[in-house]
Amino acid sequence: MEIKIMKNILDRNQDKANEVRKRLEQEKVVMVNLISGPGAGKTTLLERTCEELTSRLKIGVVEGDIATDRDAQRLKKYNIPIVVINTEGGCHLDSHSISKVLDLFDLENIDVLFVENVGNLVCPAHFNLGESFKIAMVSTAEGDDKPGKYPMLFREAKAVLLNKTDLIPYTNFNLNNFKKDLIKINSQIPLFEISCTRGDGLKEWFDWLLLQI
Amino acid sequence: MEIKIMKNILDRNQDKANEVRKRLEQEKVVMVNLISGPGAGKTTLLERTCEELTSRLKIGVVEGDIATDRDAQRLKKYNIPIVVINTEGGCHLDSHSISKVLDLFDLENIDVLFVENVGNLVCPAHFNLGESFKIAMVSTAEGDDKPGKYPMLFREAKAVLLNKTDLIPYTNFNLNNFKKDLIKINSQIPLFEISCTRGDGLKEWFDWLLLQI
Repeated sequence: MEIKIMKNILDRNQDKANEVRKRLEQEKVVMVNLISGPGAGKTTLLERTCEELTSRLKIGVVEGDIATDRDAQRLKKYNIPIVVINTEGGCHLDSHSISKVLDLFDLENIDVLFVENVGNLVCPAHFNLGESFKIAMVSTAEGDDKPGKYPMLFREAKAVLLNKTDLIPYTNFNLNNFKKDLIKINSQIPLFEISCTRGDGLKEWFDWLLLQI
Repeated sequence: MEIKIMKNILDRNQDKANEVRKRLEQEKVVMVNLISGPGAGKTTLLERTCEELTSRLKIGVVEGDIATDRDAQRLKKYNIPIVVINTEGGCHLDSHSISKVLDLFDLENIDVLFVENVGNLVCPAHFNLGESFKIAMVSTAEGDDKPGKYPMLFREAKAVLLNKTDLIPYTNFNLNNFKKDLIKINSQIPLFEISCTRGDGLKEWFDWLLLQI
């Protein structure tokens, strides 16, 4: 009897991610996998992005959360299609769950599908969802030493959003140290210094995002 | 032939954790598993705690990091035994790695062994290390909605440290909302409101910690 070997979980995730990517390309949907630690400001970024771009782009959102639908509730007011994936303890989204929720969207009527991943700077970076690209987000309040300490995400991402720049005067965050650390990990990556509460730097993010679509 | 079934990873982790716990009890070492998301202030808490308590307690530290030994370097000045575990991508420490590093400490000369877990509010809560208790740490900059969104850690912990209270005036953090959220998850848990950079609230933390030892 032939012994069948189960492919490992990352291989299976990658196969399904390839399937998702092909489907999204056919439907001309750009999928953005938004990754950060807890409370770096992913949902607030999506609020600002919806306010600015829903008149020009058809936006959809997948909200990945361990528990609660709080983030989705915050986005309801923009009248966009939103699907919540509760991982019930799981530390990241995977391509299988994304593949399933795609059926719940009318993809013909979506230009950009944002996936707000579970708040976790580690595990989501390992799981390809079939996204067009990943965005790494980090808050100044987390300190300037994060790229070197959590290198995988900063290597994988297409751009970095450094949020909460308004808090810099009240913390020991050193922007030069952060940039030096980031350049060592990923020398070419665009960095957007933003404050989602104040609006600083968001125009550059919107402009860059529009160029990707 | 009898078919042997490999016990799942959490079972094996629990078995080894029980072994670690027994060993630490014999050696009269209290092990504190310190868990937070990235940049909530775990290392700064250990700096303040070493400054205050090394004259009264023999402290050791295990530094869990995905990459780099930066946190350990920050603690070197206190002249305490420190062992770094680099998980090389891994999102949490487990009891097997803790069991191995215990051999590197002179346990007879340690009262408290702090384990600074990988910066991750999700996975470390699932893995018992054989610790005497877990401490959940969260920064005000992460927002007041974290207990409900990451319930497992707040259920598992023996106390919660809310750090960076000095940033509250510059954020939309609402302390009442945070407390309401926390009480729903764990109604009895002690909460320490602290600022590790300013020193606010740390006396209560030191006093509580000394009572556990």
